[in-house]
Amino acid sequence: MTDTGGVARNPWLLPDAVEELLPPAAARLERLRTQALVTCERWGYALVMPPLIEYLEALLSGVAHDLDLQTFKLTDQLSGRTMGVRADITPQAARIDAHQMRRDGPVRLCYSGSVLRTRPDEPGAARNPLQLGAELYGHPGIESDVEVIALMAEVLYAAGVETLHVDLGHVGIFRGLAAEAGLDSGDEARLWDALQRKAVADLEAILDTLAVGDPHRSRLLALAWLSGGEDVLAEAEHRFAPAGEAVVNALADLRAIAAHLQGWLPQLVLHFDLGELRGYRYHTGVVFAAYVPGASQALGRGGRYDDIGAVFGRRRPATGFSTDLKTLLRVTAPAAAVDHAPTGIAAPWVDDAALRRCIAELRERGEQVVWQLPGHGHHPQTVGCNRMLVSDGQGGWSVQPLEGE
Amino acid sequence: MTDTGGVARNPWLLPDAVEELLPPAAARLERLRTQALVTCERWGYALVMPPLIEYLEALLSGVAHDLDLQTFKLTDQLSGRTMGVRADITPQAARIDAHQMRRDGPVRLCYSGSVLRTRPDEPGAARNPLQLGAELYGHPGIESDVEVIALMAEVLYAAGVETLHVDLGHVGIFRGLAAEAGLDSGDEARLWDALQRKAVADLEAILDTLAVGDPHRSRLLALAWLSGGEDVLAEAEHRFAPAGEAVVNALADLRAIAAHLQGWLPQLVLHFDLGELRGYRYHTGVVFAAYVPGASQALGRGGRYDDIGAVFGRRRPATGFSTDLKTLLRVTAPAAAVDHAPTGIAAPWVDDAALRRCIAELRERGEQVVWQLPGHGHHPQTVGCNRMLVSDGQGGWSVQPLEGE
Repeated sequence: MTDTGGVARNPWLLPDAVEELLPPAAARLERLRTQALVTCERWGYALVMPPLIEYLEALLSGVAHDLDLQTFKLTDQLSGRTMGVRADITPQAARIDAHQMRRDGPVRLCYSGSVLRTRPDEPGAARNPLQLGAELYGHPGIESDVEVIALMAEVLYAAGVETLHVDLGHVGIFRGLAAEAGLDSGDEARLWDALQRKAVADLEAILDTLAVGDPHRSRLLALAWLSGGEDVLAEAEHRFAPAGEAVVNALADLRAIAAHLQGWLPQLVLHFDLGELRGYRYHTGVVFAAYVPGASQALGRGGRYDDIGAVFGRRRPATGFSTDLKTLLRVTAPAAAVDHAPTGIAAPWVDDAALRRCIAELRERGEQVVWQLPGHGHHPQTVGCNRMLVSDGQGGWSVQPLEGE
Repeated sequence: MTDTGGVARNPWLLPDAVEELLPPAAARLERLRTQALVTCERWGYALVMPPLIEYLEALLSGVAHDLDLQTFKLTDQLSGRTMGVRADITPQAARIDAHQMRRDGPVRLCYSGSVLRTRPDEPGAARNPLQLGAELYGHPGIESDVEVIALMAEVLYAAGVETLHVDLGHVGIFRGLAAEAGLDSGDEARLWDALQRKAVADLEAILDTLAVGDPHRSRLLALAWLSGGEDVLAEAEHRFAPAGEAVVNALADLRAIAAHLQGWLPQLVLHFDLGELRGYRYHTGVVFAAYVPGASQALGRGGRYDDIGAVFGRRRPATGFSTDLKTLLRVTAPAAAVDHAPTGIAAPWVDDAALRRCIAELRERGEQVVWQLPGHGHHPQTVGCNRMLVSDGQGGWSVQPLEGE
């Protein structure tokens, strides 16, 4: 067993980039999961449990092509149709909002479940993340963006993250600049791809080929380096002031969201990255990602995606975040000793009604009580116990420290 | 949305026999899940989280052929090898015991996760159960069988099941009688199949073809009707007394397990069904299934399967149970009104530090507080609230009933 922060990988038995959790890491992850869902519930988010598999067209409606490549395909023996194993739960939640809930006002949903990907999203990532997220439908304003970012931060802080950086961007800036430069959707997609990879030489080559001149050219190129603190926002406002309304409004939204977040969560460190588009498969507005210093994988990610419900027949505003609980577990792993100390109570295998009552009461109070099965000379400590139930010889039982403890 | 006890099926959107859970059923299921895992933990069972996919040979090693047919196959793009989506978590837990834990003494593991099946197990069953189970490795005696049956009963009682019937059987009786009759493994498999279906005419035809005469013939045929209360056990002991040691020992184990269970859980109704082999894909000893009166689907199922670890290089005794939480949810569904009553507190969207502190404290105390996003004239009750936060005009905030409540 290789120790990689509590997440075990056994290359001989498990496929590459497929992880499993053993004791005690699995119990810690379960606590993180429960705690995060309780937080979402207290913010008004109702739990949904969409299925692992759906018909492929339902899973991929309205999402970017890379999610198709990431999705495992299966044939349904009952219908002969192609199904997919979900690679992302967000589109499923949007389908539930559009088709199952059918409300006019705001709807808040949360979820937690396994997703599968044909290949790792990035080097070192697992193909079987445990996704947890929350989505807010039916409200188009920045207030709902602020709410989901604040909820994401609260979930991560509650998990034990101490310092949290949030990168903010807005896909409307890129889209507005591309429209203003007269690019068609195919050209826009090629530029998006180069910008995702922060490949400036590729960006320049594409703009050369398309004969995009200034000021459009320099504005689009600026996205590759407009990344940093609040001065970046000021610089962008200055540079893009003459650009179209869509770009100016997107920058104003970013500034307003940042101001609210700083009021709510003064300890949150905000960055702005106006060319950050990686991993945003269906987003239309503000996008964000949460990091801890020193870790390259985002702990949480999300943004606004107002159009996704359109394919389900209802065009609803939507914004939300999701996180991979296994990545969160690695980042917040405690000292190993804390989890490994035995805390259980061993009970002798005796057919005695008083003993059974005593055990039931101890368990009711939250204690772990483990039967010592006959025929085993093993020390109770090997099954996680530091105490044992001892008879007083007069029908009573009491908890005593293990001999030798 | 069709209401089927809180589990929604939408035949247009979801594949047949694939279910999803909406509010408030999903939250109820989450509570059942958490409660069941806490119970397992207090009995000394450590949580593991095996992956949804593994190489096919790892998933299917040591299990019966029907699990192969039930398993969705995928091609691993990284290795080119065939992977399977697990249809059952029990063999994964056995692999973890054999390969990852590698202890000599007893090991107790529990798990909860989605499984997928190519076809429903029985009419009306879902293809995406949410399996929860517990397994005890390393102890060959009936005491560990008693422990896992008692734990299963405790999990089901804690979920709200009131009357629980447990059917007990032992695959060693059939196997012993088949061996005594000189059947080879192919003939044994054909008889097993007929007995699973309780098809007496098929059983007789197979025995005729094989020229199996009495006493073997009448003993094997008796398995099809030896089903009922404790008198069935007495009848079997009488009929099978001249049979081989394996059969006699199996009956003695059944009697001892039943006696212990009646001492521990006097309210449990025990049945004996000596020909019940349906759904037991890898079992070698006692097998059991839990039912509530009036429901045909088993709530829990399990048994002893001592050989499964052999393919992983470690032949360990093993016994355990599993349950489908979605079936459990349906059986224990409460009156709808209980779940639907709004209990939240609406908070106005005001940028006020005192309000934010007040909200944080309310959530800390377990209250649900939902922001009223600007631009929505909707009544707070539509987002699940029956109270609201009201300013006293002097910087303070208090919780008040909603007007019109």
